[in-house]
Amino acid sequence: MNNVDLAVQFFLQIAVILLTCRALSFVAGKIGQPPVVAEMVAGILLGPSFFGLFWPELQQLVFPWDKTQQLRDTQSYLFPAAQIGLALYMFIIGTEFRLDIVRERLRTSLAVSAAGVIVPFVMGAGLGWFFFHYTDLFPARTSQLEGMLFLGASMCITAFPVLARIIQFKRLTGTPIGTVAIGAGAIDDAAAWCILAVVLAISEGNGALAYRNIFGGIVYTALVLGVVRPLLQRFQRWLLHVDGSLADGGLIFCLAIMSLGAWFTDLIGLHAVFGAFVMGTAMPRGAVTTGLMNKIQPLSVALLLPLFFTYSGLNTRMSLLDSAFLWGMCGLVMFVAIFGKCFACWAAARASGMPNREALGIGILMNARGLMELMIINIGLQRGIISEGLFAALVIMAVVTTLMTSPIFDRLIVSPSLDRLPAGHARTT
Amino acid sequence: MNNVDLAVQFFLQIAVILLTCRALSFVAGKIGQPPVVAEMVAGILLGPSFFGLFWPELQQLVFPWDKTQQLRDTQSYLFPAAQIGLALYMFIIGTEFRLDIVRERLRTSLAVSAAGVIVPFVMGAGLGWFFFHYTDLFPARTSQLEGMLFLGASMCITAFPVLARIIQFKRLTGTPIGTVAIGAGAIDDAAAWCILAVVLAISEGNGALAYRNIFGGIVYTALVLGVVRPLLQRFQRWLLHVDGSLADGGLIFCLAIMSLGAWFTDLIGLHAVFGAFVMGTAMPRGAVTTGLMNKIQPLSVALLLPLFFTYSGLNTRMSLLDSAFLWGMCGLVMFVAIFGKCFACWAAARASGMPNREALGIGILMNARGLMELMIINIGLQRGIISEGLFAALVIMAVVTTLMTSPIFDRLIVSPSLDRLPAGHARTT
Repeated sequence: MNNVDLAVQFFLQIAVILLTCRALSFVAGKIGQPPVVAEMVAGILLGPSFFGLFWPELQQLVFPWDKTQQLRDTQSYLFPAAQIGLALYMFIIGTEFRLDIVRERLRTSLAVSAAGVIVPFVMGAGLGWFFFHYTDLFPARTSQLEGMLFLGASMCITAFPVLARIIQFKRLTGTPIGTVAIGAGAIDDAAAWCILAVVLAISEGNGALAYRNIFGGIVYTALVLGVVRPLLQRFQRWLLHVDGSLADGGLIFCLAIMSLGAWFTDLIGLHAVFGAFVMGTAMPRGAVTTGLMNKIQPLSVALLLPLFFTYSGLNTRMSLLDSAFLWGMCGLVMFVAIFGKCFACWAAARASGMPNREALGIGILMNARGLMELMIINIGLQRGIISEGLFAALVIMAVVTTLMTSPIFDRLIVSPSLDRLPAGHARTT
Repeated sequence: MNNVDLAVQFFLQIAVILLTCRALSFVAGKIGQPPVVAEMVAGILLGPSFFGLFWPELQQLVFPWDKTQQLRDTQSYLFPAAQIGLALYMFIIGTEFRLDIVRERLRTSLAVSAAGVIVPFVMGAGLGWFFFHYTDLFPARTSQLEGMLFLGASMCITAFPVLARIIQFKRLTGTPIGTVAIGAGAIDDAAAWCILAVVLAISEGNGALAYRNIFGGIVYTALVLGVVRPLLQRFQRWLLHVDGSLADGGLIFCLAIMSLGAWFTDLIGLHAVFGAFVMGTAMPRGAVTTGLMNKIQPLSVALLLPLFFTYSGLNTRMSLLDSAFLWGMCGLVMFVAIFGKCFACWAAARASGMPNREALGIGILMNARGLMELMIINIGLQRGIISEGLFAALVIMAVVTTLMTSPIFDRLIVSPSLDRLPAGHARTT
């Protein structure tokens, strides 16, 4: 297919994705799941595990596959739009991020994020050691160290964007529970990407990769919070109309620096979502953040973000889990993932003085793996660090931990007891 | 470059494009040009005619070229985002389109659109005859009929999206002058694409192409206005929240049917913009259109639309006009284009009873060729119907007619005299 044919196809894909998401969101709403879960499931259903399994010719018509390159054509169109959507969304989440609450709850945030990295990492590495010695879930070329580090990293992941959407959906934005979870989720994901960088550096014998990643990320965050943030605060009237609302030029400028941030973090090997998120936290609170929220959120959530979630789902092949042994290993992965993350974060929040119910809520939220997990394990599969069977087990773990978050949270945590912010703070569903 | 490297690049491109557009818009504002002109010029400056001419290595870093395929890598990322942006924008323009005014001013609208097709077409075909016999501006394989039809079609084009943005910028949306110009512009562009389809059908010896295009377009418009529009009108409360505002699900649904429309018109060989525009005209007026406007417009105008205008500019090489003879032919093209379109539309509007000033305003607006022209002539160049020299002359014509629109309009037409709608009708800059 050439560019023009692909462009034709693209609008059909958008229509199919949006209508599927809409229908599934309707069902999800009835059973207490947020739209983001509907979008993840929509992606998996539209991919090779359902649509492609039962109506292969029709699926081929809508999402043309290329035998050798696997969806390359479709991906080349969905991917950029999905990337923009994800970056915009994380930018908006950044503008709602309450640095003041993180500061107030610094001990809890640090404890939760440390526990959320260390415990799953150690348990994951242990599982990696076990898999390395007693199964063939790692390809022969993967060393013991690589296997342990990779599985450790993949257990640390928190579904940062999914978490953000669930918190927004439950109207927890700006509450201590929402803020601690988002903050700790961001730190844990950044840590997991840094560990991944170390794995890739070892696997390619190139140590500079890991340095670039870790130091680049620290320098970027320091620069944005230490330099960009005060500058924007000081010159914020340049971004506003005379009536005090966000000007079109101001919006364009903010989008441009968000893109620069996304580009930079992508370039150093952290994911673009961190650059966009951190840049969002640097936006001057008030007219600017309200304007950005109102102007960016509706279209990015309704149109672009579903493309991201569906894009990821399209790459998932459930059919790879084809034996009882693999399902058993899958159960083991699941246990380590849930115990390591949920339990450790709950214990850390509790130990740092949070009430039990909020601590449990944080543990449950942090447990969702979502699509950041899918990204990391896709890289592992592409680079040949994990086998297709282990990949499928990790996919199941990512989907199950995400699906269980919302219903368990609703059952255990009764919302009105949560310590909410006064109304007036921008919140949307 | 692989997908991941391209994705990294993509955010840098967005940042460079947005910052360039922002800087040029600032300058454009000072000299009375609308932002859309700044975006067109930004595209040309960022392309091979300026950035690539003076800083080729730097340009290569930001917009990587591929020696054989010409920007294929960059295009594969910019193109889909640009396409979505354009479709969304034309959809919004459709929601603001006042079918009632077109009905009221049916005679003027029909007269202007007929004159705006017939006169430029006949003059363009004559110019094609002249070029065919007395110059080598057509490649040897182009027949006289193809050359005449193609040049005729390329003279009929009106910059439908550019026109829409200028009208919105000048706050003429919903006024008779704005409505007649948009309506006639839409008809003229559709006619030009149909003529192009005939040319391509002749050139490929495949008559079905032209039928599919023309009848498909008529069937689509009839279906959307005759079936979709009344259905949406009737079931519009399903799109709304209980408080009467547009629901998230309603927004997603509207975006999905817009995508279906864009896909269908693209499929039959009309451009996606028509599908999106016509679907926009079918949206129920009131809460739905206001909601769509507020939720779609800001992000698509600030982020996605500049990508479209820049994308087109990146493909333009001014350096092809390298002789006095070519510049002379370029002048001839310009004269035919301006006289054929502007004068004919003015005369038609005048003859159908419009006051002189408004009639002149319509002529000036219809004269802008913008980027629809660039699309048509790019197709002509790709298919080998026109030479690179004639291509460059047509590019200059497109840019000059677009640049001249706003300043001449401002000088000749004093805005307060225009018959405006009462306030309350949604208008934005």
